[in-house]
Amino acid sequence: MGRNVIVGQSGGPTAVINSSLAGVFEGAKNEGISKIYGMVNGIEGLLKGSYIDMDDYLKEENDIELLKRTPGAFLGSCRYKLPDMDKGKNVYEKLFGILEKLEIGYFIYIGGNDSMDTILKLSTYADMINSDIKFMGVPKTVDNDLAETDHTPGFGSAAKFVAAELKEIIRDSSVYDMESVTIVEIMGRNAGWLTASSILAKGKDCNGPDMIYLPECAFDKEKFLEKINELRKVQKTIVVAVSESLHDKDGNFLCEEGAEISAADAFGHKILSGTATYLADLVSHRLGIKARGIVFNTPQRCGTHIASKCDITEAYTAGAEAVRAALEGHTGEMVIFRRVSDEPYKVMTETYDIHKVANEEKTVPEKWIINDGTYISDEFIKYCRPLIMGEIEPFMEDGLPRHMVR
Amino acid sequence: MGRNVIVGQSGGPTAVINSSLAGVFEGAKNEGISKIYGMVNGIEGLLKGSYIDMDDYLKEENDIELLKRTPGAFLGSCRYKLPDMDKGKNVYEKLFGILEKLEIGYFIYIGGNDSMDTILKLSTYADMINSDIKFMGVPKTVDNDLAETDHTPGFGSAAKFVAAELKEIIRDSSVYDMESVTIVEIMGRNAGWLTASSILAKGKDCNGPDMIYLPECAFDKEKFLEKINELRKVQKTIVVAVSESLHDKDGNFLCEEGAEISAADAFGHKILSGTATYLADLVSHRLGIKARGIVFNTPQRCGTHIASKCDITEAYTAGAEAVRAALEGHTGEMVIFRRVSDEPYKVMTETYDIHKVANEEKTVPEKWIINDGTYISDEFIKYCRPLIMGEIEPFMEDGLPRHMVR
Repeated sequence: MGRNVIVGQSGGPTAVINSSLAGVFEGAKNEGISKIYGMVNGIEGLLKGSYIDMDDYLKEENDIELLKRTPGAFLGSCRYKLPDMDKGKNVYEKLFGILEKLEIGYFIYIGGNDSMDTILKLSTYADMINSDIKFMGVPKTVDNDLAETDHTPGFGSAAKFVAAELKEIIRDSSVYDMESVTIVEIMGRNAGWLTASSILAKGKDCNGPDMIYLPECAFDKEKFLEKINELRKVQKTIVVAVSESLHDKDGNFLCEEGAEISAADAFGHKILSGTATYLADLVSHRLGIKARGIVFNTPQRCGTHIASKCDITEAYTAGAEAVRAALEGHTGEMVIFRRVSDEPYKVMTETYDIHKVANEEKTVPEKWIINDGTYISDEFIKYCRPLIMGEIEPFMEDGLPRHMVR
Repeated sequence: MGRNVIVGQSGGPTAVINSSLAGVFEGAKNEGISKIYGMVNGIEGLLKGSYIDMDDYLKEENDIELLKRTPGAFLGSCRYKLPDMDKGKNVYEKLFGILEKLEIGYFIYIGGNDSMDTILKLSTYADMINSDIKFMGVPKTVDNDLAETDHTPGFGSAAKFVAAELKEIIRDSSVYDMESVTIVEIMGRNAGWLTASSILAKGKDCNGPDMIYLPECAFDKEKFLEKINELRKVQKTIVVAVSESLHDKDGNFLCEEGAEISAADAFGHKILSGTATYLADLVSHRLGIKARGIVFNTPQRCGTHIASKCDITEAYTAGAEAVRAALEGHTGEMVIFRRVSDEPYKVMTETYDIHKVANEEKTVPEKWIINDGTYISDEFIKYCRPLIMGEIEPFMEDGLPRHMVR
């Protein structure tokens, strides 16, 4: 049986996906693994024979620290969906042939929902052919929508970015003595976790967003305009946080009513954009108030310069734990976080059956969405605040954060 | 003659406009001024009798440091254009009445082009009526388009934000093994300084944007598409930085061809937005490549969490210098920076006749725009790099930068 480790990154990057990679690497080193390979562009790249020896890139202590401070996926990523086993047997045969050639004993995949589907299929196939290669998943997504885990690495840093930027925007938007509505559009396909995190901007020095709309609730345009009209009576400046995937009660996305036509990615998910612009136009045309849309876009998932230390540390831990569990014989599982207490914040890691994680989506609990679907409760703040705590200083060079390149 | 100081902030905020306010306050304190008033919402607010005593808000050393770390305009801002003297004599009479009542000797206004018009008019009127109130301008704009000064406080921090975010976006955009074009839209009405600063992302760990388009050159759609096609031959991922105000040779703004309708502000400037979306649509429809637009929007002018230390320091100095000059008897002038040397970076402050500054716009020199209007020269980098150097650590509370509130 092979003893080497191979690790891949899959799906959209996060600010800390490379911290998980660092955790896998150092975790494997600590377990005495000699060869640690990295798939270039996930399994899609591996199928083309594209991989690197991680030792060629991570040579000293400082490299690991720089890797943790690097946004994007260091190894490259993919959105490749493995075919069903009956239809694409040749793909599985090819992949396991490559793994055998590299003497892989442990296959670690860092990713979200779709990537856990990969771990599910590969571990099932391994079982079928009696391969003893262990397959472990490391959770990653800014969307925080993975089932069974308390939260997902990548979410905390994105939440910190969202809340920090929003505080700055709220200050900026309130400088003029005139009516204005600012709509800020935040990522999240079917789950509003990241949009909900905008509430963290609320504090002694900031009121936070005035309203928050998640995709968990059907959006009603007329009610929205009414609420804006109510707020106008007491304040001049209104800031609203909205999820990119707001939809009406029939499931029609707001952004589809806007100017932009949506395409779909390899997993059939619609690419959403245009919600903020649509709502800003709606407010200015219907109510005659100056309104603008701000779209956070990809910067919210790659804002490593303002990453959360809690998140970076946990992402690293999740990577190291996946290796440890694989070496213990676990397979077809994902590392999860179980919260032990809120104050002081304490979590422990476990591993969990991938069947119960893959292709599932965890949405924001109904009880945390309040005020007729326009605001977020204090319970959410209690849940989310610990995840954005702490910072690690970027390595600055020529006035900018330095990154590691492959 | 009054000995008090009054200070106002005007126009769009920058990440360091409050550092200039701190400089005015401490500069005045150091000169032994007892009363330092702040106009709430600039002269527009002052005309309504809205002002504060700065001592009520800035009480200890730490307050000044917190003010420097606060985005937006602490005093509130306005976009109020003073009427011509022959038409609006009553406005001037009212304003000077208020100044007299408050025993103002020195009037300091922190702002951009339009705000310097205010200093010009007020100092001219003072001269006319033999008032001995001194009027001094403190330069401020992320656009860097003020005449006569080497650069403008606010620009360095915005440039640092743009370059830092762009580095993160470039890493994010290159994770997939597939063709993609990312268009990043950057602020700047008629001057491309901030868009040009995207070149600073180029370094040992990043290629920087592949093309950079400034409003100083007419934009040609067909040539642009040709350039994209050329780049495709050698690379999969293309990132282009564009100014929000790109226009064709006839002066038609690109964004006006897009979906969004532009309004105009009080100064008759068009509000521009939609260039990135328009170009991304153009690329995907005409070339069939996946393309997306990212708009930096207001975060680029309020990104105090990643402000440049050089910029913060200079903004403070400009504020203090304006007070010093006013006390020396200067009026109708603006503080400017004169560069002494690039390496080591050294500047000195001077004051300059406001007639030569107000309502003028400084654009990026033609010689710094290269490759047929698609790239920026090393000379620009040499000019701009010092302005983004250094950081000051935010005051963190509950995981987010803390701000000062009025």
